[in-house]
Amino acid sequence: MADKAQIQEAIKVQGEVVRKLKSEKTSKEQIDEEVSKLLQLKAQIGGDDGKHQFVLKTAKGTRDYNPKQMAIREKVFNTILGCFKRHGAETIDTPVFELKETLTGKYGEDSKLIYDLKDQGGELLSLRYDLTVPFARYLAMNKITNIKRYHIAKVYRRDNPAMTRGRYREFYQCDFDIAGQYDAMIPDAECLKIVYEILSELDIGDFRIKVNDRRILDGMFAVCGVPDDKFRTICSTVDKLDKMSWEEVRKEMVSEKGLSEEAADQIGEYVSLQGGMELAERLLQDQKMSQSKQACAGLTDIKLLFSYLQLFQVTDKVVFDLSLARGLDYYTGIIYEGVLTQAGIAAEAQNASGAEESVSVGSVAGGGRYDGLVGMFDPKGRKVPCVGVSIGIERIFSIMEQKAEASAQRVRTTEVQVMVVSAQKNLLEERLKLLTELWSAGIKAEVIYKKNPKLLSQLQYCEDSGIPLVAILGEQELKDGVVKLRAVATREEADISRADLIAEIKRRTSEA
Amino acid sequence: MADKAQIQEAIKVQGEVVRKLKSEKTSKEQIDEEVSKLLQLKAQIGGDDGKHQFVLKTAKGTRDYNPKQMAIREKVFNTILGCFKRHGAETIDTPVFELKETLTGKYGEDSKLIYDLKDQGGELLSLRYDLTVPFARYLAMNKITNIKRYHIAKVYRRDNPAMTRGRYREFYQCDFDIAGQYDAMIPDAECLKIVYEILSELDIGDFRIKVNDRRILDGMFAVCGVPDDKFRTICSTVDKLDKMSWEEVRKEMVSEKGLSEEAADQIGEYVSLQGGMELAERLLQDQKMSQSKQACAGLTDIKLLFSYLQLFQVTDKVVFDLSLARGLDYYTGIIYEGVLTQAGIAAEAQNASGAEESVSVGSVAGGGRYDGLVGMFDPKGRKVPCVGVSIGIERIFSIMEQKAEASAQRVRTTEVQVMVVSAQKNLLEERLKLLTELWSAGIKAEVIYKKNPKLLSQLQYCEDSGIPLVAILGEQELKDGVVKLRAVATREEADISRADLIAEIKRRTSEA
Repeated sequence: MADKAQIQEAIKVQGEVVRKLKSEKTSKEQIDEEVSKLLQLKAQIGGDDGKHQFVLKTAKGTRDYNPKQMAIREKVFNTILGCFKRHGAETIDTPVFELKETLTGKYGEDSKLIYDLKDQGGELLSLRYDLTVPFARYLAMNKITNIKRYHIAKVYRRDNPAMTRGRYREFYQCDFDIAGQYDAMIPDAECLKIVYEILSELDIGDFRIKVNDRRILDGMFAVCGVPDDKFRTICSTVDKLDKMSWEEVRKEMVSEKGLSEEAADQIGEYVSLQGGMELAERLLQDQKMSQSKQACAGLTDIKLLFSYLQLFQVTDKVVFDLSLARGLDYYTGIIYEGVLTQAGIAAEAQNASGAEESVSVGSVAGGGRYDGLVGMFDPKGRKVPCVGVSIGIERIFSIMEQKAEASAQRVRTTEVQVMVVSAQKNLLEERLKLLTELWSAGIKAEVIYKKNPKLLSQLQYCEDSGIPLVAILGEQELKDGVVKLRAVATREEADISRADLIAEIKRRTSEA
Repeated sequence: MADKAQIQEAIKVQGEVVRKLKSEKTSKEQIDEEVSKLLQLKAQIGGDDGKHQFVLKTAKGTRDYNPKQMAIREKVFNTILGCFKRHGAETIDTPVFELKETLTGKYGEDSKLIYDLKDQGGELLSLRYDLTVPFARYLAMNKITNIKRYHIAKVYRRDNPAMTRGRYREFYQCDFDIAGQYDAMIPDAECLKIVYEILSELDIGDFRIKVNDRRILDGMFAVCGVPDDKFRTICSTVDKLDKMSWEEVRKEMVSEKGLSEEAADQIGEYVSLQGGMELAERLLQDQKMSQSKQACAGLTDIKLLFSYLQLFQVTDKVVFDLSLARGLDYYTGIIYEGVLTQAGIAAEAQNASGAEESVSVGSVAGGGRYDGLVGMFDPKGRKVPCVGVSIGIERIFSIMEQKAEASAQRVRTTEVQVMVVSAQKNLLEERLKLLTELWSAGIKAEVIYKKNPKLLSQLQYCEDSGIPLVAILGEQELKDGVVKLRAVATREEADISRADLIAEIKRRTSEA
């Protein structure tokens, strides 16, 4: 524990940092972070006085979802869930943390982004980084050799958050994977079909699905003269082509990673290629490429994949793109990425981020084949071939949220069908009785929690929250054995007998 | 890092520990834990050889859910969600971790059970311990003064897991809370109504809802002569009455906590009382109790609460029980707990746990009023009165799982309506074409991912996974422009024209 004087000195220094950043008009995110550090220091002093000052914020890179955002999120989830179920997937759940060693050696250079738990005695634990490694652990642990499962859950990465671009430290992944020994490319094609269906249904603008194969990349590296031990690191550099220009990528290869200029230029020629089945055919005839057995196996599979994609009617959006690399270590075959291409959305995202990222603003899905991962967990190394896809919800959610804000339509945050109100005083008991009747009949209903609320404020509440019906109770209605049912939109009112009320409410709300 | 010799020595010692425990026939849990330590040590050695041996397990106190368990869990969630929505609640979401200081000072003696994240540079974080404190933080941060919200999410406690009794370190809470300045006991009564509805609908045996009030407890402690500074600790001891006998509780009060025997005996008389509205009335006349203003305020509210509970038609299950204390620091008024009482379930749970816990095996819901918590987060201390309830899903889930296992009914883990199969070889393309048609029409369908699967194995797959319909394609069907539609249950088959197929499938599966 630092003593009070030390903390006060630290507060002074941190205060200077914040003032300097503000005067330099640094990015809001960076200032916020330094302010947060300052407030935390101040909170420590506050604690010493016995009057603890809380820093009212969520952890860096995370956020709350308010009811409106939840309503939009639910809509997105329902679309994705509907698709996964249409394709016959089961679901599983795994804990949010795993033994640390379960995650070790699976993520290459990104392993530094894993959140570790504090050693409080007992096992060393880490928060899951994705849903794929826990899935593989689950398969090996339960000796499952085939399953088609989806899993929608949060994952954690200590990345530099860029929240305006939908990049968080806590975020949802919606994963669909097919494990099992099957005939080539049939499950792989279904994964691409799923990306196609979801991105179409969500209606968030035009998209492309880029496809490549790790074996083609490795074969390409081999025939271009990349030494074996540099495949992975050169692959990481190629993976940056969606964020950097070819010149920058080439420079990194040659200057930082020590690749020959000749090899880099040959790679440059290949990674500029895009096409469909015909490109795969051409490359199979390519003098260089055809020398690699690996590349040929990958190209043959790409051809077969495209033939299935034709049957699935999705080839209009799928591109065979030799620059697609994907960072994760565990992929062994086909890899793919779903990217939003619509100019409007790209421009919006650029505005928000200060136009830094001009290409590939919209990667919203990714996946591939990982035939070796389950074997890494099996004591006897038994392999279970797997292929899967992960839909990244946060960016999609940001777009949907912007769309909802732009549109005039109100987002309802509850499903309440009827509000029970009273026109006179002292009718709380009667309101609660009627409410009980409605709830018993499965009708979504509420009251204002006051003994004598004003009629106008009760009606206003319905307008504000989009409740379609009001059941009004007054002395007269009680005497007549009726309820005055009011349609909020039209303000029309009609007396309905108590016996018919539930049927009438059901009729009116099922029409809506 | 320990060197190899040290680890090998540790393995030897740990091996002895495991052998000893096994020979003593210690509990399986304890043996498993020591075996796990042993395996981890061995894994370290394995790592040194370059051949890493994984410990294939989930973290202590956590578990995976397989597809069958997920199907049951979904059913439970749907019941709870349906109730929350019927009562007009919105939903929010908060991150799984909070700033450590957000959780500090909220949980009394249980704070030691909080999971901290490792300090990897940046903020100090902890996994949430419940959903109530993050909710209060959310209200204060967004200056929200009234909301009715539900939140279903996982929380984390480094407790001693007793997984056979449904006690885990990672578990779901289903919370419903009403925040706002309202007339007394109306929102409180709705929370009890919700517990009543959910426990009735889930159909997991008889239950009681115990009710008490922190002010009655404090008033009782005061009139029984408990010193002010001992209220909280004596309250913690009273809270153990559901696990310990009165004699044991009395002993802890007197011997450990230094309470006078006289005071303890007076408390003993009060905490044995149970009843309804009439008990509250009697205690308001009680010579001792009526001396405490606090107790009188609490008793008056209990009376009012029962009058609303009568209107809500739930008094048959609600008991005013002066022994109910609840451990958490933040409660300020009414507190309650939903308890399963059915002998059958209690006995099952006892069997599983070795008959250790004979009382209150079935606490499945709890909550109360916490009017001060939001103010602890507000810089100006502005209060937002809150009352809420938390449904504990794990124990309910264990019971539902046992029921499902006992019943003959199969639990389906997918919703697939139709399987597309071929009777002859080389019809993969035709199967994929038909599959695409079905998916486009929103029908849940699948194929076996093989070029030439056997008809029998395709039909067997349908039987095993409960798929009701099979669409059979053969050369003849293709020529005739029909599909042979087979009902799996009855084995009846009929040729349906391709044009009518989708309507026919929809008709048949909506009937089911």
